[in-house]
Amino acid sequence: VAMTVNRRILLTARPDGLVSEDCLDRVEEPVAPLADGEVLVRVLTLSVDPTNRVWMREEDSYLPAIPIGDVVRAAGMGEVVESRHADYNAGDLVMGMPGWQDYWTVTSDDDAQVVPPGIPAEDMLSIYGGTGVTAYFGLLEIGRPQPGETVVVSGAAGGVGSIAGQLARVKEAGRVVGIAGTDEKCRWVVEDLGFDACINYKTEDVDARLLEECPAGIDVFFDNVGGEILDAVLNQINIGARIVMCGAISEYTRAESPGLKNYKSLIMQRGRMEGFIILDYLDRFVEAIMELVPMVADGRIKYAVEVVDGLEHAPATLNRLFTGDHTGKLIVRVAEPSA
Amino acid sequence: VAMTVNRRILLTARPDGLVSEDCLDRVEEPVAPLADGEVLVRVLTLSVDPTNRVWMREEDSYLPAIPIGDVVRAAGMGEVVESRHADYNAGDLVMGMPGWQDYWTVTSDDDAQVVPPGIPAEDMLSIYGGTGVTAYFGLLEIGRPQPGETVVVSGAAGGVGSIAGQLARVKEAGRVVGIAGTDEKCRWVVEDLGFDACINYKTEDVDARLLEECPAGIDVFFDNVGGEILDAVLNQINIGARIVMCGAISEYTRAESPGLKNYKSLIMQRGRMEGFIILDYLDRFVEAIMELVPMVADGRIKYAVEVVDGLEHAPATLNRLFTGDHTGKLIVRVAEPSA
Repeated sequence: VAMTVNRRILLTARPDGLVSEDCLDRVEEPVAPLADGEVLVRVLTLSVDPTNRVWMREEDSYLPAIPIGDVVRAAGMGEVVESRHADYNAGDLVMGMPGWQDYWTVTSDDDAQVVPPGIPAEDMLSIYGGTGVTAYFGLLEIGRPQPGETVVVSGAAGGVGSIAGQLARVKEAGRVVGIAGTDEKCRWVVEDLGFDACINYKTEDVDARLLEECPAGIDVFFDNVGGEILDAVLNQINIGARIVMCGAISEYTRAESPGLKNYKSLIMQRGRMEGFIILDYLDRFVEAIMELVPMVADGRIKYAVEVVDGLEHAPATLNRLFTGDHTGKLIVRVAEPSA
Repeated sequence: VAMTVNRRILLTARPDGLVSEDCLDRVEEPVAPLADGEVLVRVLTLSVDPTNRVWMREEDSYLPAIPIGDVVRAAGMGEVVESRHADYNAGDLVMGMPGWQDYWTVTSDDDAQVVPPGIPAEDMLSIYGGTGVTAYFGLLEIGRPQPGETVVVSGAAGGVGSIAGQLARVKEAGRVVGIAGTDEKCRWVVEDLGFDACINYKTEDVDARLLEECPAGIDVFFDNVGGEILDAVLNQINIGARIVMCGAISEYTRAESPGLKNYKSLIMQRGRMEGFIILDYLDRFVEAIMELVPMVADGRIKYAVEVVDGLEHAPATLNRLFTGDHTGKLIVRVAEPSA
């Protein structure tokens, strides 16, 4: 193992907009020998999430900013290749934050969770990982849709949004309306996932279309996007509306926010806008997964995963979240499992 | 009564900024004879509230916009002078929305509540009226300060803000910091009301001063102001912070909002921003008043009321809310009670 070469992608500068090579250093380093208590993990898959880009910014967020010179932080899964820790054995599949590299040295046992057997690797990073569980707790704990209510979801064709909208349908929302960036995404969301409608925010007048598609007003907004779309929705919320602030992807790559002008409707409509971070729900992941399994089994929840092969494509794949060039969950496959 | 002259101030155009005479028509009309079930009230006092200005805007809010040509809507109190309704007798004191006029004809018994005896008229429109009760439910139901937490109040020298900050103190907030617009107001809030500190947003750097006065971050923000001050606070909220959206007075007189740029910190900090309207708590007014009475009696809650004499001064008095030229609650006295 001492001779193993570890490809690592380091952050060398704060990106302005999309992630460019100017901000990265691609290095190859030998894997250091393990100390007592450490575990060496061969990374198999990496989750591609908007939050990767948030962590590259200067400001700390719910986690500290990635220090300049460090490997880019990212969630993922891998296989234990060597363990000097009693709780881990070679061959175990583990999840955590390996980052953009081939080999991940786990130095604290809080950092790596052993994956329960029998769940496909891709599912653990999507429907049964941060993506599905984010949709689950965000919609049900913060949004709390009641039967008959109108639920709007932005980033509707994304990993989280696509599941949030279907969960609203399962919970008997009266109307589920998506917002996405291409006609193809809108078609997928309506025809395959069962949303009632989907608005293409790049080609349609969002205000007018929301008015048309939400004739009874908006009760719950599951927001992945922020910015102008959030502002448009704020103008059409009902009394007692709940806005689930899951993300604000429209903001992460720009320096200056357009600003929310319609926040005052939260006063007039007694609305609530609330953020959440899925890490706060780590100890309830099993609860969400147990609820999701039967919904997936009988087809009430469908999901799409696109797997991109090769660690080297991680930066370009991350950028696709911001150009909107993807449907469903994006995953980078770094290596195949040994078995 | 048919010969009684009723001075009325009508809204004839939507103001741009402060309320000017161009938007008003001051008329004198005879009071119409009462129909069966109606009650004639001689208006004694009018409550001067930011919401009066909100209702003058083109858009409907939590109540419809005041129709052009109608008397300006305002809460207030008066004395029944003639009743053709079994539940009301001449001499009764009643509260409701008389508007800017000398005589108010009550056409629906939902519109006028008989005031319990023994409470001074000024208190019914301030500490035991919409003002005190707004502070009470906003802070305790939406803000929910826990012992030791840091509470910030904007419009701290205003009717609602001054009470909200003192309530936070009663609830054992660790630190209560006000924001107001003059050094005199700041002094009153700290020296007379017991706030720990008060920031003069017109002469001080709000960001820097918040950082200084809230070294443990901000847990609860009771906001009457909105705009740039809300944005500054959003930048310094703690995990799980609650922002009570009571009002956004900085916005009501301008056409274009500056926009909230820092709303994303609600995601990172799992914060909640929630609006409320005191009319939703009408059936719980007694509960709040019962709690407030002993706090007022033993001096834990102090309040200031400035009474301006003369219906004719209602427009200029309303404008003082927006120029910041007042401390505590503003009331217009229209007439003296007969007894």
